[in-house]
Amino acid sequence: MTPEPPAFDLEALLRDERAEVERALQRACEWLGEELPDELLQPARHAVLSGGKRFRPILCVVAYRACGGATVPAVYDLSAAIELIHAYSLMHDDLPCMDDAALRRGQPTPHTLFGEAATARAGLALIPAASLWALRASDALGADDARSRKIVSQLNRAAGAGGMVGGQALDLLGEGKYLDSNALNRLHSMKTGALLTASLVIGGIAAAASDTTLAGLESFGRGIGLAFQVTDDILDATEIAADLGKHPSDGLLDKSTYVSLFGLDEAIARAREYAEEAAAALRGTGVDAPALIALASYVVKRKK
Amino acid sequence: MTPEPPAFDLEALLRDERAEVERALQRACEWLGEELPDELLQPARHAVLSGGKRFRPILCVVAYRACGGATVPAVYDLSAAIELIHAYSLMHDDLPCMDDAALRRGQPTPHTLFGEAATARAGLALIPAASLWALRASDALGADDARSRKIVSQLNRAAGAGGMVGGQALDLLGEGKYLDSNALNRLHSMKTGALLTASLVIGGIAAAASDTTLAGLESFGRGIGLAFQVTDDILDATEIAADLGKHPSDGLLDKSTYVSLFGLDEAIARAREYAEEAAAALRGTGVDAPALIALASYVVKRKK
Repeated sequence: MTPEPPAFDLEALLRDERAEVERALQRACEWLGEELPDELLQPARHAVLSGGKRFRPILCVVAYRACGGATVPAVYDLSAAIELIHAYSLMHDDLPCMDDAALRRGQPTPHTLFGEAATARAGLALIPAASLWALRASDALGADDARSRKIVSQLNRAAGAGGMVGGQALDLLGEGKYLDSNALNRLHSMKTGALLTASLVIGGIAAAASDTTLAGLESFGRGIGLAFQVTDDILDATEIAADLGKHPSDGLLDKSTYVSLFGLDEAIARAREYAEEAAAALRGTGVDAPALIALASYVVKRKK
Repeated sequence: MTPEPPAFDLEALLRDERAEVERALQRACEWLGEELPDELLQPARHAVLSGGKRFRPILCVVAYRACGGATVPAVYDLSAAIELIHAYSLMHDDLPCMDDAALRRGQPTPHTLFGEAATARAGLALIPAASLWALRASDALGADDARSRKIVSQLNRAAGAGGMVGGQALDLLGEGKYLDSNALNRLHSMKTGALLTASLVIGGIAAAASDTTLAGLESFGRGIGLAFQVTDDILDATEIAADLGKHPSDGLLDKSTYVSLFGLDEAIARAREYAEEAAAALRGTGVDAPALIALASYVVKRKK
């Protein structure tokens, strides 16, 4: 009788990696505090250190390891650079001049505690800080200038016009309008998918992965990015505000979602399909990555 | 009789370089438009293309040339990356949630035309865009990965917590308080000086200048940065809102300025001293740069 391979312990992975990422985020905030005046450091720390799944940094670390990188603290530092971008985007999304949200993850948003101007400025400080912190971490990982440069380029592409900010703009413009599935996919590929994908690719670059492997990580990222967003829409549609710890703003704003477009059952089926396509794309490149495959299934099974 | 060297034609330099910078900014906006949705491109274009002295890009190009760089369009592209950061900072400064300014250079500010959310997002898009555009320009200039990486690092340092955003925070915190000359120098070295200095150093890096020369450019930048700000305070104190095309907000906000600290005459003397110190620092490194020396004198002689 062949023994079964041990079941992959995803929960342990998420818990352990998250703990390391939290430590790296602490280090990043200490470094930020060397230069950032205290009045901006407070909202920045609040935004960076007040929880979250840390899914992007975990993707980065897991991709790095799948590509043969040896686990060292610097890879968590690198992964934290991505979370700085994510944290800034949440700070700015929640500002009164944007979505005007008072709660995030069940906690008061930074601007309700530290004021709008200080929070806005602190968020702005995180953008260049993310690039500088990524460069520092790349050095510590022994990446050469070519790879460091690629990492900072990936990070800025994902954060900018062709990525997160561009997607947020499409999201804003889509309010109250009917978006078909192509338009919705494009929006979310930019708004959420770009940074998720960059997390994986940056992990790969840090581990000196081949271009073929990086292309595989990119396809994988695209798939789980869509699976992630469809699942977000499903959770928004099926959970109530109290469970989420935030307002179900998309419903209130009359936005197109995968659930409004396809209905709940079809949306659930699509989320699974995207995750499976992602896993298939990765297997096609020969990367042996049970942890990444497990993360793809987590994306569709998770709660908020 | 030794013939006099021809007088340096600073006005022609400013006019010609500015025209080239404008063309580069047009190219940068076209590139931005490849990815940025039109609703964000409009406020971004308005902010980037609605005039200004283009002093930072001109410093970059002139420093590059002083260090032996051959004038090619790509150096203007590189210089435009710095102006994208400057443009974003003005967009965000003028937002209702920040200084709430309706006019800038006598023209309506972007948020009055395109709304606060779109303007804020467009400004956010310019930050990573500046890094990406600088990397593109570095490639076109034939800079190797090490220099490209140094350029993007300089740009982000100047834009961030230890530079512009940090200085803006100190400025905000200084409102209604007495700042001594050390505190005022620190504030302005970060808020204005860091990006001016980075402009020079980036030009030097692009021209493959030695570390000694880069250090000279940095000292020069520190001096003209302070001269620039003292002169700003002098102009604010002596000109009226109608001439400036903007509100003399610092006076209204009861901020410490070099004029309120030292009086007008002493401030004028200090501006000249800083400019002279800057020129001396540059001469000490053996860089033959009559254009840079002329720009240092322009800093204290200019109108807004």
